[in-house]
Amino acid sequence: MTTTTSPLRIALIGTGFMGRMHTQAWRTAPRFFDLPYRPVPALLIGRRPEATAEVAARLEWPEHSADWREAVERDDIDVIDICTPGDTHAEIALAALAAGKHVLCEKPLANTVAEADAMVDAATRAAGIAMCGFSYRRTPALALARELIADGRVGEIRHVRAQYLQDWLSDPDAPHTWRMDRDRAGSGALGDIGAHSIDTAQWLAGQNIEAVSAAMRTFVTSRPRRGAVEGLGGVAADPTDRLPVTVDDAAAFTARFDGGALGVFEATRMATGRRNANRIEISGDRGAIAFDFERMNELEVYDAAADVAQGFRRVQVTEARHPYAGAWWPAGHGLGYEHLFTHQAVDFVRAVAGEVPVSPTFADAAQVQRVLAAVEQSAEHDSILTPVATVAGETEGNPA
Amino acid sequence: MTTTTSPLRIALIGTGFMGRMHTQAWRTAPRFFDLPYRPVPALLIGRRPEATAEVAARLEWPEHSADWREAVERDDIDVIDICTPGDTHAEIALAALAAGKHVLCEKPLANTVAEADAMVDAATRAAGIAMCGFSYRRTPALALARELIADGRVGEIRHVRAQYLQDWLSDPDAPHTWRMDRDRAGSGALGDIGAHSIDTAQWLAGQNIEAVSAAMRTFVTSRPRRGAVEGLGGVAADPTDRLPVTVDDAAAFTARFDGGALGVFEATRMATGRRNANRIEISGDRGAIAFDFERMNELEVYDAAADVAQGFRRVQVTEARHPYAGAWWPAGHGLGYEHLFTHQAVDFVRAVAGEVPVSPTFADAAQVQRVLAAVEQSAEHDSILTPVATVAGETEGNPA
Amino acid sequence: MTTTTSPLRIALIGTGFMGRMHTQAWRTAPRFFDLPYRPVPALLIGRRPEATAEVAARLEWPEHSADWREAVERDDIDVIDICTPGDTHAEIALAALAAGKHVLCEKPLANTVAEADAMVDAATRAAGIAMCGFSYRRTPALALARELIADGRVGEIRHVRAQYLQDWLSDPDAPHTWRMDRDRAGSGALGDIGAHSIDTAQWLAGQNIEAVSAAMRTFVTSRPRRGAVEGLGGVAADPTDRLPVTVDDAAAFTARFDGGALGVFEATRMATGRRNANRIEISGDRGAIAFDFERMNELEVYDAAADVAQGFRRVQVTEARHPYAGAWWPAGHGLGYEHLFTHQAVDFVRAVAGEVPVSPTFADAAQVQRVLAAVEQSAEHDSILTPVATVAGETEGNPA
Amino acid sequence: MTTTTSPLRIALIGTGFMGRMHTQAWRTAPRFFDLPYRPVPALLIGRRPEATAEVAARLEWPEHSADWREAVERDDIDVIDICTPGDTHAEIALAALAAGKHVLCEKPLANTVAEADAMVDAATRAAGIAMCGFSYRRTPALALARELIADGRVGEIRHVRAQYLQDWLSDPDAPHTWRMDRDRAGSGALGDIGAHSIDTAQWLAGQNIEAVSAAMRTFVTSRPRRGAVEGLGGVAADPTDRLPVTVDDAAAFTARFDGGALGVFEATRMATGRRNANRIEISGDRGAIAFDFERMNELEVYDAAADVAQGFRRVQVTEARHPYAGAWWPAGHGLGYEHLFTHQAVDFVRAVAGEVPVSPTFADAAQVQRVLAAVEQSAEHDSILTPVATVAGETEGNPA
Repeated sequence: MTTTTSPLRIALIGTGFMGRMHTQAWRTAPRFFDLPYRPVPALLIGRRPEATAEVAARLEWPEHSADWREAVERDDIDVIDICTPGDTHAEIALAALAAGKHVLCEKPLANTVAEADAMVDAATRAAGIAMCGFSYRRTPALALARELIADGRVGEIRHVRAQYLQDWLSDPDAPHTWRMDRDRAGSGALGDIGAHSIDTAQWLAGQNIEAVSAAMRTFVTSRPRRGAVEGLGGVAADPTDRLPVTVDDAAAFTARFDGGALGVFEATRMATGRRNANRIEISGDRGAIAFDFERMNELEVYDAAADVAQGFRRVQVTEARHPYAGAWWPAGHGLGYEHLFTHQAVDFVRAVAGEVPVSPTFADAAQVQRVLAAVEQSAEHDSILTPVATVAGETEGNPA
Repeated sequence: MTTTTSPLRIALIGTGFMGRMHTQAWRTAPRFFDLPYRPVPALLIGRRPEATAEVAARLEWPEHSADWREAVERDDIDVIDICTPGDTHAEIALAALAAGKHVLCEKPLANTVAEADAMVDAATRAAGIAMCGFSYRRTPALALARELIADGRVGEIRHVRAQYLQDWLSDPDAPHTWRMDRDRAGSGALGDIGAHSIDTAQWLAGQNIEAVSAAMRTFVTSRPRRGAVEGLGGVAADPTDRLPVTVDDAAAFTARFDGGALGVFEATRMATGRRNANRIEISGDRGAIAFDFERMNELEVYDAAADVAQGFRRVQVTEARHPYAGAWWPAGHGLGYEHLFTHQAVDFVRAVAGEVPVSPTFADAAQVQRVLAAVEQSAEHDSILTPVATVAGETEGNPA
Repeated sequence: MTTTTSPLRIALIGTGFMGRMHTQAWRTAPRFFDLPYRPVPALLIGRRPEATAEVAARLEWPEHSADWREAVERDDIDVIDICTPGDTHAEIALAALAAGKHVLCEKPLANTVAEADAMVDAATRAAGIAMCGFSYRRTPALALARELIADGRVGEIRHVRAQYLQDWLSDPDAPHTWRMDRDRAGSGALGDIGAHSIDTAQWLAGQNIEAVSAAMRTFVTSRPRRGAVEGLGGVAADPTDRLPVTVDDAAAFTARFDGGALGVFEATRMATGRRNANRIEISGDRGAIAFDFERMNELEVYDAAADVAQGFRRVQVTEARHPYAGAWWPAGHGLGYEHLFTHQAVDFVRAVAGEVPVSPTFADAAQVQRVLAAVEQSAEHDSILTPVATVAGETEGNPA
Repeated sequence: MTTTTSPLRIALIGTGFMGRMHTQAWRTAPRFFDLPYRPVPALLIGRRPEATAEVAARLEWPEHSADWREAVERDDIDVIDICTPGDTHAEIALAALAAGKHVLCEKPLANTVAEADAMVDAATRAAGIAMCGFSYRRTPALALARELIADGRVGEIRHVRAQYLQDWLSDPDAPHTWRMDRDRAGSGALGDIGAHSIDTAQWLAGQNIEAVSAAMRTFVTSRPRRGAVEGLGGVAADPTDRLPVTVDDAAAFTARFDGGALGVFEATRMATGRRNANRIEISGDRGAIAFDFERMNELEVYDAAADVAQGFRRVQVTEARHPYAGAWWPAGHGLGYEHLFTHQAVDFVRAVAGEVPVSPTFADAAQVQRVLAAVEQSAEHDSILTPVATVAGETEGNPA
């Protein structure tokens, strides 16, 4: 790429954690990858003008605004990058797609299936591309896992076991944020991190979840109002001034995949000691893969072929022949979390040029949304239905 | 202990894998532990006289017989050690308890809840003690875990995640054994290995499972008849001569504990690459423990107390101050699977003398049986009920 | 930092792997850290004008040149960042320091002790700061290790064991590069990666190496001339057209630290299967730390204080309270290799402003150079001197 | 094996830790392995009659004595099993071999090379077999490693890196035992645990060490006299009543193998946090193996063959096809430290019958002894000779 490559002018909506991350990605992508267009950060949108100005200055956005509609309406913007809470995704994306923009929308796609379906519908008719930000698809180790599974090295898939374990809410006095508010966030651990597990599982396995049985829990029902300090986590101003938690702390469900696999999922922000254990293991009749994001540069691979020395291989997915890795450092010099977003930016730009398919599409993301809704519906009735005590009586003389 | 300690004369029923293991345990226990009685292997019982004679000779049992009733009726037998398939447990145990014997019965306690309840009832009225062989309770690392949890180092328990992953049936041509026959084994992965997870979870957490939602799968519905070669696994004589598999290959369930914890369980013999991954992780508001039997000498312990250097500690549970470990080798010189059975023998003998409580009791084991039955009942209706496709429609306009 | 912060104009010399890395670091640092000056990439220097122009375009350097003297002479350049092979470091650094520039020089500081000493001397008299690029000091896990050691949590240090294991030269037909040429590189594995181990060890332990006993090996004495393809590793044009390898493939040495610790070091590019295992373990009477760069976000920490559950803790050094980590993502979202260079840029800018001490100084780096020279001198005489066969005779009647 | 197999009557000398271990091994071996002779524990020898009587009773030795000469002289003893401190090995072994006994002698073979040579000489002329107890050769994982190396899966060996790290002397107030007394033990960490590394390395690599460069350290020069409590470690009666430590706490050396490999060895009892990390890694041009006894049931295996998914495999060496493992439990049900001794007993009995070669022979063990002596001799002169400070001066103008 040279500076003469055509620009792709980006408006980014959201100045929080994800906004910073996407900015870094747009800037880094063209320095390490050959791209068909040159992404140009053009306009930053944030609700609070002062804070937005500060972020824009630090991250070198040439313009900023408090109104996302400005981005949609301007002719000199090509891409709308949506990094806001889930309750605003649908409205912005629908407007952007209608205006012919390319859209990158953070996950989860929406807070409801109805919204998601409308977004899929709009994407189908749109001139621009529409991609959802399930960034873990861009982990080199998981991209390699997908290649291995597609090549048949796992064989017929029987088991999908996925855990997404965090512990930042383990402390009952960790402060309240918008992520604990159902109106803003849609759901808690389920939508925030469980959604990643669902997308990763369906994408890796090449199978969709068709039914679930779920349980959800809110272990800590109120949390201190967050003080002045910004940032994920933040600092509580007054521990007794508490706001209600209206989302789940944890969700667990079993799942039936349409290809026959049996799934077991767990998402929680209260797995004490687990900082970001986004784990997945897929087992088939020919092999298995296992992954834990806490060791994101590694993929464990098992091959059931006859050999006296078989065992899970700890593959460092940092070699030139591995997905994305060739653009970076020598083998063994790992990448970090932010590189997922750089890879996402790369794939987005390439998808705009038609070089690669859009992945995940809004339809893929709506399928995730549908699973999330099914999980919530199942949990509402509390699917942990079969009582242990009763069973004893029932089965006397007629053992189960 | 000296040779003048009173003997405890043992009759062991079963000449297979577990029979060998228990024999080794009875012989080893008094050499490394100070015991109130001296266990004396006296009588070995097996259905096939010739094979039994051979095993008796090798394992130095002075007498053998084909009739377990002989053991129950003889006055010079103190302990009946039941190592047979689950369908025979109840009959033998009831007779033995009625005869005033001490009984050690392999797990699962029985094949049905009704049988288990009858056994509990008999145990309550019996003169002898009655213990069930959930041997994993005797893993030093798990015994330490229980101490830590009892000492409050995990705090209020929120999560129990247990997986018991094996892969010896991953190959569709692995031969048929009695363990695949519902009449003999009761169930498959669920009762064979899932039962261990359930017992361990309830024992560690100090909470019982009160309701479940379960799915079970039989991925390979027939297997080759086993050939002449003995041993777990064995060798198939003719791959086309197949017998039906009437038990589950895998079981998964979510669980509600009566103390408020959320449980997620998975048991399978088809987790390719996992030889014997009996894993459990328990998280509370003050800490967590994690264990994998593939590394049985290690316990991972997390302490949520403030320290700049917090993380799961890999504790080698081989120190003099650790449960059972002091009787063995210096720190870092690990124990093996068989030592669980030696520890079980030690605890059994001590329980006979009233030095320690019986653990697990038949009542503990019946509670496990009750959970197994609830899992089977839940799975019969297929608890993975909430369809993903339908949800979409339902939630339009009324998002879940 | 805002755009009104004073700029620090940078000239970077070198367009290879390290040049790209430093560029990314200068650009990223101010976006995530509050800095006293704003680093501004101003001038890129490379020997080959065409290639330099291409790199400058991609990495958005506004100017480029083929002559490093231009950078030294220009008044509008504040920092000279030296990313060239070791044989050119001294000349450039001396000129830059004489011109009053701040200097960041890649490691090893020089190819000889004499050069290094001259550089130290110049740095002492210079107006600008002089820092050497031992980037591993900026690994959050190692920075935490240093804090723990400084806080006395390891106690009196007895052992330093350091291994730097790579395998990119394990294949005898991996192509020749300047790194295999003694005139350019100074030494092989020793200076390239062993130098990192030496610096890390001395910095962590707070002790210097005062004597060594060393062995060096060149297992593959010639390698194919590299073809047209650029990059570390590259592609060989013709396997039979071979160039001599004039540096070591591996170096091993024992070391005496001036604080009493016993050191064992090994550096090799032929540890098959080890991609970038930069490992160090330091043991004292109160605890220990262990690190492996293949898992760069983790530090293993052992505390010898009395507790029934002691073991190495796997600390994910990604928390807000950990060195550097607070500027980035939530806990458990790891960093990659490149972040070391961003942290180095941060520390450099802060050192220019006098906010933090220069680390490592040229004197620190010269001490590393001195150890490298001692290792080479020791190995020249082959320090593996004591023959096993002879010993037998000698010790008869007078056992050692 | 049946009880009609000919007996092999054993006299065991030593009632400590190793005596218990060997007893257990002799008893267990015939129960799980088919053996050509039936080992029969016949006579236990210990210096203190009362203690010996107690141990004999507990471990069911039918006879005991205070005089090892009785064992050598009696016609009804076939095997002399020497489990005493190293200073007594030569005298006992020479007498036993002269009397036509089979001899199993604990390691290290002797305290001096002269003694070892005499023992080799006697073994050569003896009617019985003579084996040294380097028990780690019987670890299934290491036996598999040897098979893989012999099969060429590691290729031409370049690197041998061995560490034997313990920490039981890390505490300066850990009590004094005979193992800290040069007259009894010969040396400290070097002979006690370093000897194992040396034997394992030479045996696995199929190469002998021909020269060394060594350093040894005694960090704690006196220790409290041990109180009344028995056992490794024990309890100090009075912390101020101290005895001198006349052996090394730690030894480190580089080594030249006669097949071209470069060795790096470290043995210490002061590696805080490492309980029994007997580690070895061997790298060649085709692959590598790595092992740590703290996870004794695992072997890490790397294969350099082209595959997009290469990495160290964690092989659980517990399968029927693995060395020794077939006699035990199903895959994934690990063995413990004591099983090494059972396997050693098996191999000893088979070697007596000529079914397998003696391994290690006294000559193998004498080679280890010779390396130990060379290490001590090298360390006496302090091989860490090349001073860092001087080097600087020397190399000015003439860089190394």
